[in-house]
Amino acid sequence: MGCSEEDSQIASNTLIAADLRGVDSHGIARLIGYVRLWESGRINTTPEIKIVHETPSTAVVDGDSGLGLVVAPYAMKVAIKKAENAGTGWVAVRNTNHFGIAGKHAEMAIEKDMVGISMTNASPLVAPTFSKERLLGTNPIAVAIPAGNQPPFIADFATTTAANGKLEILQRNEEIAPLGWIQDSEGYPTENPHALKDNGALLPLGGDREHGSHKGYCLGSIVDIFSAIFSGANYGPWVPPFVSFLPVSDDSVGEGIGHFMGALRIDAFRSAEEFKMHMDNWITRFRNAKTIPGQERVLIPGDPEREFENERKTNGVPLNEKVVVDLKNLSKKMSIEF
Amino acid sequence: MGCSEEDSQIASNTLIAADLRGVDSHGIARLIGYVRLWESGRINTTPEIKIVHETPSTAVVDGDSGLGLVVAPYAMKVAIKKAENAGTGWVAVRNTNHFGIAGKHAEMAIEKDMVGISMTNASPLVAPTFSKERLLGTNPIAVAIPAGNQPPFIADFATTTAANGKLEILQRNEEIAPLGWIQDSEGYPTENPHALKDNGALLPLGGDREHGSHKGYCLGSIVDIFSAIFSGANYGPWVPPFVSFLPVSDDSVGEGIGHFMGALRIDAFRSAEEFKMHMDNWITRFRNAKTIPGQERVLIPGDPEREFENERKTNGVPLNEKVVVDLKNLSKKMSIEF
Repeated sequence: MGCSEEDSQIASNTLIAADLRGVDSHGIARLIGYVRLWESGRINTTPEIKIVHETPSTAVVDGDSGLGLVVAPYAMKVAIKKAENAGTGWVAVRNTNHFGIAGKHAEMAIEKDMVGISMTNASPLVAPTFSKERLLGTNPIAVAIPAGNQPPFIADFATTTAANGKLEILQRNEEIAPLGWIQDSEGYPTENPHALKDNGALLPLGGDREHGSHKGYCLGSIVDIFSAIFSGANYGPWVPPFVSFLPVSDDSVGEGIGHFMGALRIDAFRSAEEFKMHMDNWITRFRNAKTIPGQERVLIPGDPEREFENERKTNGVPLNEKVVVDLKNLSKKMSIEF
Repeated sequence: MGCSEEDSQIASNTLIAADLRGVDSHGIARLIGYVRLWESGRINTTPEIKIVHETPSTAVVDGDSGLGLVVAPYAMKVAIKKAENAGTGWVAVRNTNHFGIAGKHAEMAIEKDMVGISMTNASPLVAPTFSKERLLGTNPIAVAIPAGNQPPFIADFATTTAANGKLEILQRNEEIAPLGWIQDSEGYPTENPHALKDNGALLPLGGDREHGSHKGYCLGSIVDIFSAIFSGANYGPWVPPFVSFLPVSDDSVGEGIGHFMGALRIDAFRSAEEFKMHMDNWITRFRNAKTIPGQERVLIPGDPEREFENERKTNGVPLNEKVVVDLKNLSKKMSIEF
């Protein structure tokens, strides 16, 4: 597409990390989507990413329509640099695109003995509590926290009951969706996994009001506002769609989509050694908690992805047939050997 | 109890704010609980609250066993002061107690044209996904965001499906609880609102794994770690209970409970005027979203509490009979005219 060698490496690393961790929806399967966005003129492969405003602990970064996969690590580096000097660093990003899995960016902070945070808004697929309109994206939040002898705590989750990728699996297998995942175009609960294509909506974490969907709606809204209203990106229903065949809104309220990244230096609070000792204690206590019937163990955020990674690094990443066809066509189109 | 006039005012303000906003579980009904904690020697009414560590954008505050109602506003002021100089301020607090409603502290940032964040850990009542042990508190998060002509966006929610206060209402009325709120002592889903008293547990937001309870578990964990492991407070199952009749754990891992507060100066990112204009646009768009059948409107976080406040400022705060009896006994004991 014309990205520099360095940018290509950075972007590939995040896509491959997703596949290794079992987040197949955000790995190499998305490559064709990024190419289509580039073809439709929405991705600048040689962006001049820059800081447009800053204070000792904050910055606003303009991604110049670059790949989010490249813009997000840039912004995270700025956050880490700020944290080195001011204790914490907080970077709002505008004029960017889909950044892949949030956790990969947040965990850049870990090797610096910092806690990392990353979030992004996304194309509107989610209806706020009591609404039948899609006004929010799945707006994920990732928080990476270093430990000592234990592997780090890495939470990375969409602020909806279920991520869109899980719905796609049900669609492929023609299975029904649990109630609480989606509603139909009129706002009624539905088990039809195809409802989303027919103007239905994903539901905020909680599913319905009685089960706290207003809290998931709060979370998705906070991600939207931090990512876009701090930075000057599009928000809510104005966020441009990831898929290139949907039109970008005429009345945009900002530039591109938005991210928000944070880094907190541990020793800006207490010694990293003490902190990590207590994190090890926290993790060990929770991992060894007594389980409910039918479950063998309590998981620590990051465990499932790490287990996938260990297994796939040995046995390889299984690729869906459709993805293989996409990649073959892509390699032909781009004149790259398959 | 021996608090200074100033501290008494600060503490009362937060309790009364809860009652005005309809959060009856966190208002004057709690007064007797704070007095009992003081009687059992767990609250210092003349604390020397102080900063024990700091960087340009961070601080750790030791609450000296003071009322959380007093310690939290102190910490929030430190966060605001840091934000004035460094763009943002982040304060972890140890050796403190129950701080009332989280939203009241977060919103201190609003009049300074800042975004405010407040969270706290709490006595263990919540079982992580797949566990039958109570290892987390209801660990609330509040985020207050200024707008222009619109009232501010104020999210304030427990990271569980339902707050403990809602369960208490069901108990009083002998009604069943929706599935997804609680589990029994063995970890089975239950509709019995009394299960919590019998070693059952509240469930993380999401309710069960299929509906995303691992995300609620992540959120509650992040609040626990930010509040306590950054500060040196107790975390997880070691958090001391709010009720004075339960013993404090012998093998504590820190001091008191923990809070975490943040303030982000809007103009550390972009002009406050632009930010507020877009917040007004965000709020207006969401408020006017099309509704699902049976609902008249989509709410903005903070709307329900503001409506309660308007109504109760006119008509007064209705007090539960049991609370009135408690207050009568309390006034007798403390030789204060009822």
